[in-house]
Amino acid sequence: MTESIVINEVGLRDGLQSQPKHLTLYERERLANALLATGLRHFEVGSFVSPKAVPQMAGTGDLFARLQAPQDVHFSALIPNMKGYELARAAGLETVAVVVSATETMNQKNINMSLEDTLSVAQAVIQRGRDEGARVQAYLAVAFECPFEGVTPSSVVIDQAKQLADWGANEIVIADTIGAANPAAVRGLMDTLVVALGSERLACHFHDTRAMGLANVFAAIESGVRKFDSSVGGLGGCPFAPGAKGNVATEDVVMLCESIGYSTGVDMAALLKAVDVVSELVEAPQGGRAHYWLSNNVAA
Amino acid sequence: MTESIVINEVGLRDGLQSQPKHLTLYERERLANALLATGLRHFEVGSFVSPKAVPQMAGTGDLFARLQAPQDVHFSALIPNMKGYELARAAGLETVAVVVSATETMNQKNINMSLEDTLSVAQAVIQRGRDEGARVQAYLAVAFECPFEGVTPSSVVIDQAKQLADWGANEIVIADTIGAANPAAVRGLMDTLVVALGSERLACHFHDTRAMGLANVFAAIESGVRKFDSSVGGLGGCPFAPGAKGNVATEDVVMLCESIGYSTGVDMAALLKAVDVVSELVEAPQGGRAHYWLSNNVAA
Repeated sequence: MTESIVINEVGLRDGLQSQPKHLTLYERERLANALLATGLRHFEVGSFVSPKAVPQMAGTGDLFARLQAPQDVHFSALIPNMKGYELARAAGLETVAVVVSATETMNQKNINMSLEDTLSVAQAVIQRGRDEGARVQAYLAVAFECPFEGVTPSSVVIDQAKQLADWGANEIVIADTIGAANPAAVRGLMDTLVVALGSERLACHFHDTRAMGLANVFAAIESGVRKFDSSVGGLGGCPFAPGAKGNVATEDVVMLCESIGYSTGVDMAALLKAVDVVSELVEAPQGGRAHYWLSNNVAA
Repeated sequence: MTESIVINEVGLRDGLQSQPKHLTLYERERLANALLATGLRHFEVGSFVSPKAVPQMAGTGDLFARLQAPQDVHFSALIPNMKGYELARAAGLETVAVVVSATETMNQKNINMSLEDTLSVAQAVIQRGRDEGARVQAYLAVAFECPFEGVTPSSVVIDQAKQLADWGANEIVIADTIGAANPAAVRGLMDTLVVALGSERLACHFHDTRAMGLANVFAAIESGVRKFDSSVGGLGGCPFAPGAKGNVATEDVVMLCESIGYSTGVDMAALLKAVDVVSELVEAPQGGRAHYWLSNNVAA
């Protein structure tokens, strides 16, 4: 019996929101359908934030309504606050994602709120989700390093993760927002969290900025983590800088997981077609670290 | 006290020998000097093979004679047979590297010899090295997967490594010649070999074909391996195919090792200058997976 690893495709949100080319709803639907055809079953479909602030994510509710997905597909949407929660729930989303940055300065700089206030918002959303039977994922951003405060102490992240879990978050996602994690730090933190919270309540979100994305995924797998965020084609890096990578690429994570004996349920040939679709839509070539090898060695 | 990891720079041999641009002795010397300035202290300087077969490596003895290196620098050269051993020793090399492919078919296809005959050559070279006080590194090529036979059973590699060690090889280098290893396979094999032979007699040689090079290095470090081959700028991929990676890049390995708390003795800014030198010399841009990030984040 092969053990499974769940891949949560975040290209539709974390990937697209940094693109200068703003996709139409039809284009986002086309990408979502290409991704649904790969066997991926978990998607962050978009976010419910101000369309003035993030125009790339405008109309996420409409996008979600247009998608026709099999019963076993799970969609989530990022929400910044209770208003976002209400919009997401009104649109029919059963899972929402809230974000808490682990450091005071990152909360201040990113959303002009204190860490305490951000945690209060998360607590309220989690509580409401529990009351209404919605699933809440709580992201801990800059969990390894903060661009303003430097290395994030693991004790801080562990305390926050436990707090979010105590409040009732269904899943805690440990996020290396700036791609500064290394596999030893991942191992150390995730070993502790898997013991404290259990593997089924944890996920990891890595960026591949320093090319250590796959090493970090491997380290987390060895710690017992079985769910990972990733982005088709590594979509999400700075589009003006070739080589500036974004989220760890879905095809790289699938390759790694399958090569070490886990099943992901993903058809690699279909996934490579989805990479082509996203490259066409954003008008810039996408592809993870292994894209050359995969493109030349996976039968279409 | 920081633990060290030894990096054996193989760009001058494994990197250059696949390049269509054949460097002059002067150019190879320039690259060697750029590399010596980085703090790297172990080099595969070239090979003693037929210059008709591998013209890129012609004159390795002359190159070695021209290099003025500090006392603590160690040079090795690849040799195919006893004649190569004699040429290398006559040129003054104190360390030679012999290669045994782990599978029968690879030996047949690569050098038209049986595995048994290749092992006999290795045994004779090791014995002569012991008699003459020379150091012999024994490479086990295709140690994870063979392009002809598929996955190489770890039991085969373990038996061969023990045999080479029994004969007296100073170091056994486990080589993923085609870049097909995954970190779980690396962990499994190296855990056993470190127990059987001791870490100080082992090294690993990874290619980054499938972007799992750093994950493999990390897995081997966790098994206790403390010496790795790598190539400046990842030199060694197919030069006609951008994205076809060769050896795992020295700068990537240095970054990984230092980020997880090991010292390598390498000055990253100097190493990035050496990447520029090799790009200029081979007339094609080189650089490992993290080259973009390193180039923009390491002060010159």
